[in-house]
Amino acid sequence: MARTMNFNAGPATLPLPALERAREELLDFSGSGMSVMEHSHRGKEYEAVHTEAIALLKELLAIPATHEVLFLQGGASQMFAQVPMNFLPAGKVADFVVTGVWGEKAVAEAKTIAALGGGTARIAASTGTGDGKEKQYTRAPRQEELQPDASAAYLHFTSNETIHGVEFGVTDARPFPKSSAPLICDMSSDFIWKPLDVSPFSLIYAGAQKNIGPSGVVVAIAHRDFVETGRKDIPKIFQLRTALANNSLYNTPPTFGIYLVRNVLAWAKQQGGLSGLERRNREKAGVVYGAIDASPGFYRCPVEKESRSVMNVVFRLPTEALEEKFVAAAKKQGMVGLKGHRSVGGIRVSLYNAVPLEWAGALASFMGEFAKLNG
Amino acid sequence: MARTMNFNAGPATLPLPALERAREELLDFSGSGMSVMEHSHRGKEYEAVHTEAIALLKELLAIPATHEVLFLQGGASQMFAQVPMNFLPAGKVADFVVTGVWGEKAVAEAKTIAALGGGTARIAASTGTGDGKEKQYTRAPRQEELQPDASAAYLHFTSNETIHGVEFGVTDARPFPKSSAPLICDMSSDFIWKPLDVSPFSLIYAGAQKNIGPSGVVVAIAHRDFVETGRKDIPKIFQLRTALANNSLYNTPPTFGIYLVRNVLAWAKQQGGLSGLERRNREKAGVVYGAIDASPGFYRCPVEKESRSVMNVVFRLPTEALEEKFVAAAKKQGMVGLKGHRSVGGIRVSLYNAVPLEWAGALASFMGEFAKLNG
Repeated sequence: MARTMNFNAGPATLPLPALERAREELLDFSGSGMSVMEHSHRGKEYEAVHTEAIALLKELLAIPATHEVLFLQGGASQMFAQVPMNFLPAGKVADFVVTGVWGEKAVAEAKTIAALGGGTARIAASTGTGDGKEKQYTRAPRQEELQPDASAAYLHFTSNETIHGVEFGVTDARPFPKSSAPLICDMSSDFIWKPLDVSPFSLIYAGAQKNIGPSGVVVAIAHRDFVETGRKDIPKIFQLRTALANNSLYNTPPTFGIYLVRNVLAWAKQQGGLSGLERRNREKAGVVYGAIDASPGFYRCPVEKESRSVMNVVFRLPTEALEEKFVAAAKKQGMVGLKGHRSVGGIRVSLYNAVPLEWAGALASFMGEFAKLNG
Repeated sequence: MARTMNFNAGPATLPLPALERAREELLDFSGSGMSVMEHSHRGKEYEAVHTEAIALLKELLAIPATHEVLFLQGGASQMFAQVPMNFLPAGKVADFVVTGVWGEKAVAEAKTIAALGGGTARIAASTGTGDGKEKQYTRAPRQEELQPDASAAYLHFTSNETIHGVEFGVTDARPFPKSSAPLICDMSSDFIWKPLDVSPFSLIYAGAQKNIGPSGVVVAIAHRDFVETGRKDIPKIFQLRTALANNSLYNTPPTFGIYLVRNVLAWAKQQGGLSGLERRNREKAGVVYGAIDASPGFYRCPVEKESRSVMNVVFRLPTEALEEKFVAAAKKQGMVGLKGHRSVGGIRVSLYNAVPLEWAGALASFMGEFAKLNG
């Protein structure tokens, strides 16, 4: 079977060995005569998977003892509401740094919670330009553009904006925002693409379906003490302390999804860990951005160089008709998932951990030929 | 590979053909060169799965056009909070019929929402007996025991209590509760075990991990008009109208879980639909209850006959030591998942749709022998 070169933004390509392992033991997990998804979430077979997934993530990120790994549900979209439900009390302000649509959505849900609970959701910085419903975003802000409220309940940002291809922390010129308020980050689309110092964060969360697994699992890394500051008068299921106190087993977790996360993390470790992945990810992104920059009159990346995402490369062609032709021609070469998000158009190339360097190379070659033929 | 006889309460055994189909196409879905979990939730390949799953459920249950199928996340435990968030406004009462621990949990989360929102969560009927933290439940109430509030925002009940083995609607003597208020049912552990008239219900929800798939997916059937009566001032992600308006694709759904639900529903159709499943389910339960009743001095089912669950058969042995011996001896015969829930002890046999009649027969034979040897 030829494996399709899948540049989807998420759900996205997964490491082939992680999938092969799942297929191998799909009907008989660990000699039990049952699929892992048929095991009780309170049985020893699943427990071993759950524990291993957490241990692997702690090892890969060198997570300090102050923090714990949580498995949640509902995607980042649910976290947009659940975070302020927990951590934005009456009379307090939550600060948001907005660099794209996902940040906007986080603000919108926080405003709803604020309206119900008496707090305030405030945009501390936004790089959005243009009026109307859909703003343009082409960069992460510099630290001096931020005006964080030191007394804020927390400061929230989106480390990588999947749709706009804008990422914090790729270059030293665009570091993660700093604030003396607790730092919360939606890391859905650039989780574990490189080593990360977890200690400054009170909460990191990520929908799994980009870099670490299938959709339906949220992985969070939470500072234990911060979790305990959360509201206690909201439903138990939404309190992060419930997941923390119950090792993410308060109710039935998405067991098969977490099993796949385990497989992906085991694969990541074999790739030389996050340093190995970073090296390869930067190489892949370099190849594709290189192909853009090599045909400056034809391809155009709207994102400023300092903020160019290593995970999602977005670019435009001279006309929308050429963009359509590009996507169709690439598909004939076995490359899919290249159409930009419907809200912004253009081309988007997602280069998550599981995308092999060869695919990036094949795409870059194709881009060169396409530019020659159509430029 | 010998398939283990899996009587787990959930996550539970799945139909072998549904798993085999998943294994067969795990790396290459529909000739796409990708796993279904690697496809975009907005692409045509996944869309076909999503649409087919909904269509199959509509066909199996003959769901009227007034109702829609929704896929949600977070398990029934999240619905315990999300339902009152949507449908319990200030100044209104929500009625609860409680026949076990899951009903208790639903009340507890509704009380939290009521405290935040100004409504009231009221127990309209409970069959719980005994004081202390853990009540005993051995029956569903008769209709005349209910005192539904006709002006209530809704009446909520749990059609089958997995832990206590108490089920509504198995016999005509214990029909589903009736109320002129909107009817909401947590059907997690007895969803699609037999044909059901959906029309009286404003909302049915079910965690998938018992009868229709893996954990991580909630299937709901919602009356469209009822959904629109929900609060609009809560986060968008929690409004059921958001799922309804977006065909459960507002954000990324648990695509692989829904794919497995599709496989299970396709299998269910091949079993003669819900009539075929009901016939077989009643036969399986008859075999196991028969084995209990055949050794009256040894096995004892605490549940009154009219309320005995067809899905979860609970019973006791003369001593806890014998119960432990029973579980261990059964395991040696390839039968697992028989230990009662830790909160009530004893034995629990879950006989969901995917449990073959032969397993029930094997268990009944084992029960007879065990009683003879140890009685």
